[in-house]
Amino acid sequence: MKPLGPIPHGFNDKDGILSIGSKDVRELVREAGGTPLFVYSRQMVADRVALLRRALPERVHVHYAIKANPFPALLQAMSELVDGFDVASGGELQKLLELGVAAGRISFAGPGKRDAELAAALAAGATLNLESEAEAERALRLAGELGVTARMAIRVNPDFDLKGSGMKMGGGAKPFGLDAERVPALARRIAAAGAEWRGFHIFAGSQAISADAIIEAQARTLALAARLASESGLALPHLNLGGGFGIPYFPGDAPLDVMAVGAALAERMADLPPELAQTEFCVELGRYLVGEAGVYLTTVIDRKVSHGEVFLVCDGGMHHQLAASGNFGTVVRRNYPVAIATRFGAPVEEEASVVGCLCTPLDRLADKGGFPRAEPGDLVAVFCAGAYGATASPMQFLGQGPAREIMV
Amino acid sequence: MKPLGPIPHGFNDKDGILSIGSKDVRELVREAGGTPLFVYSRQMVADRVALLRRALPERVHVHYAIKANPFPALLQAMSELVDGFDVASGGELQKLLELGVAAGRISFAGPGKRDAELAAALAAGATLNLESEAEAERALRLAGELGVTARMAIRVNPDFDLKGSGMKMGGGAKPFGLDAERVPALARRIAAAGAEWRGFHIFAGSQAISADAIIEAQARTLALAARLASESGLALPHLNLGGGFGIPYFPGDAPLDVMAVGAALAERMADLPPELAQTEFCVELGRYLVGEAGVYLTTVIDRKVSHGEVFLVCDGGMHHQLAASGNFGTVVRRNYPVAIATRFGAPVEEEASVVGCLCTPLDRLADKGGFPRAEPGDLVAVFCAGAYGATASPMQFLGQGPAREIMV
Repeated sequence: MKPLGPIPHGFNDKDGILSIGSKDVRELVREAGGTPLFVYSRQMVADRVALLRRALPERVHVHYAIKANPFPALLQAMSELVDGFDVASGGELQKLLELGVAAGRISFAGPGKRDAELAAALAAGATLNLESEAEAERALRLAGELGVTARMAIRVNPDFDLKGSGMKMGGGAKPFGLDAERVPALARRIAAAGAEWRGFHIFAGSQAISADAIIEAQARTLALAARLASESGLALPHLNLGGGFGIPYFPGDAPLDVMAVGAALAERMADLPPELAQTEFCVELGRYLVGEAGVYLTTVIDRKVSHGEVFLVCDGGMHHQLAASGNFGTVVRRNYPVAIATRFGAPVEEEASVVGCLCTPLDRLADKGGFPRAEPGDLVAVFCAGAYGATASPMQFLGQGPAREIMV
Repeated sequence: MKPLGPIPHGFNDKDGILSIGSKDVRELVREAGGTPLFVYSRQMVADRVALLRRALPERVHVHYAIKANPFPALLQAMSELVDGFDVASGGELQKLLELGVAAGRISFAGPGKRDAELAAALAAGATLNLESEAEAERALRLAGELGVTARMAIRVNPDFDLKGSGMKMGGGAKPFGLDAERVPALARRIAAAGAEWRGFHIFAGSQAISADAIIEAQARTLALAARLASESGLALPHLNLGGGFGIPYFPGDAPLDVMAVGAALAERMADLPPELAQTEFCVELGRYLVGEAGVYLTTVIDRKVSHGEVFLVCDGGMHHQLAASGNFGTVVRRNYPVAIATRFGAPVEEEASVVGCLCTPLDRLADKGGFPRAEPGDLVAVFCAGAYGATASPMQFLGQGPAREIMV
């Protein structure tokens, strides 16, 4: 048997059925109209933001990177919980504006912004996290044509990375942001052009569960920001410290010690270099805020035995859960936390693989895990499905179409 | 510099601009309304089918597995070119029926067929490639409720795999089909239940470019089918020999010698065991028919230099080209064939990486390839984009939305 990832806290066993909040998953599936279904818990998201607020110094704002999960009800809930939002496309920007989120709370980062996307952000008044000098010039020209004042920050490609992170976004040649040595000149150019100077966005990596790694990256981010602010000769109104706070997905992963991260940051905040004394700070988080608050539910359609191995064939699959299938930037496939939701907490009776309904051997949600014996009609839960699930998967693949999504 | 994959034959250089058929890519982009854009060539698909017809014995029909590319205009063209279609979901079935394809030409394989999907296929009269005994019983019950005669074949999990294939679908425990030893009993059960017995579907793997490997797999498929037909005591009306014909994607890949495959198959057809004497045969191909007939076009938005490396940042990316980015069942990332379409055939001037517009280091369409110097506004072409592109990618990721698609 291969181990399964750790089931996040906050899920309950109600007479042997997984429950989320006050409802068991069978009720949720009925209300939603069927499976495959993503369920997101408002309470778990609120609890996570509250934990983060307790951990971080008050001066550090919390931003939500909506790429992690742009489900409208979740964004609506988030707009009450967090201080700001980061978008990665014109499409994401539009989503927030349609929900009535004030553009002053939105920043827009992304390496290939088109003119139409820049113009939409400028017209609305969102902050552009600029990725290159050329993008800055395009944006300044467009702002002039639109007759608006551009709100501009610079995304910095830091000369360090986030150790142990799932995705390194700094440390060497990268398509993201400007190499540090070119930042002061562009900052001065932006200020001289009459734009509103908003500061730096420094993102070293994502999905780290080591507090030490995040503490080190934040220390280096503050030092780099102070140096670049000093070299640019401009006050630094705002510093986006990036994110990188990870969640446990795999066997042996332990949760990030966010209290330790917050304590270290508070210590540094008490002794900031003069360049950062007046600066506003934020962290920009996606997965950490919503990842563990989501569950993907899929129904067992068939129970098959082939050469002695048991396969639970489900009505969902990698078209909604690409990352859980191990096909999204993964080198070695490991199991996410997966359980039989309608036999929750029951003892392990057999080894089985949970596979999806797609005609490809890639479509595997759990490989040779230990489960109670499941039959067609049982529900399977894939945990840690709140981030990079529905929108980060090839949902049209094999004509399967999207999953249902609800927030409870 | 890292090598790029081989550009398929049939694309031309028209005064330094890539042309497809009689039009250059700038015209195509104008007509389509912009990039990112998939262009599929009707002529190249027709040429490929014609090549296959020349290579294969007349007795072997050609089926198209629409999972490779279900673009409606392509399906329409295919309905004139091929003998049958294979679908992998109720959604794909619906697509063909809406285009007026006769259900008698359609077979439906897939490990997790839901009752509603089975019922739709039964009502229409499509052939079910059954994946398990339990699925057979559900389908027989549904056929009874609907008052129709079920057309049923059995998908066999062969006890061998397709050597060198990108995806092995046989040889050991698999979620697909029935282990061979259980097939005769189910065949008899189906016939006894009054269903129309259609035969076997034996699929050993996909994406092999070695003729020897395909020849060997086909020989073993014929032998297995003869043995299972004999053991079942039923005549074998139809045998789906599977597919597995691959295309060259990567540096060093050579095209499949389909004439050699056809010659070997003709030899075997001339000397079939008695169980297969009256059998109809087909091969079921997806990628081989359409993969090389499609190009993905994306516009360079930014040209960036970071730590001395050049990045061409495009308006497309892995949200339409997951496989080209190396994130779809790939262990070692290699470059697809990629070119600067608006400087086609021009000499290599620099090393550059072609990246997409997504905020993730995974979004890379070409890694450190050799290209003529490109500037914003140039078009990049990713070749071999006709199969498993648009629908096999996370098109909603980061709010980017779908690509345009046209057939010329």
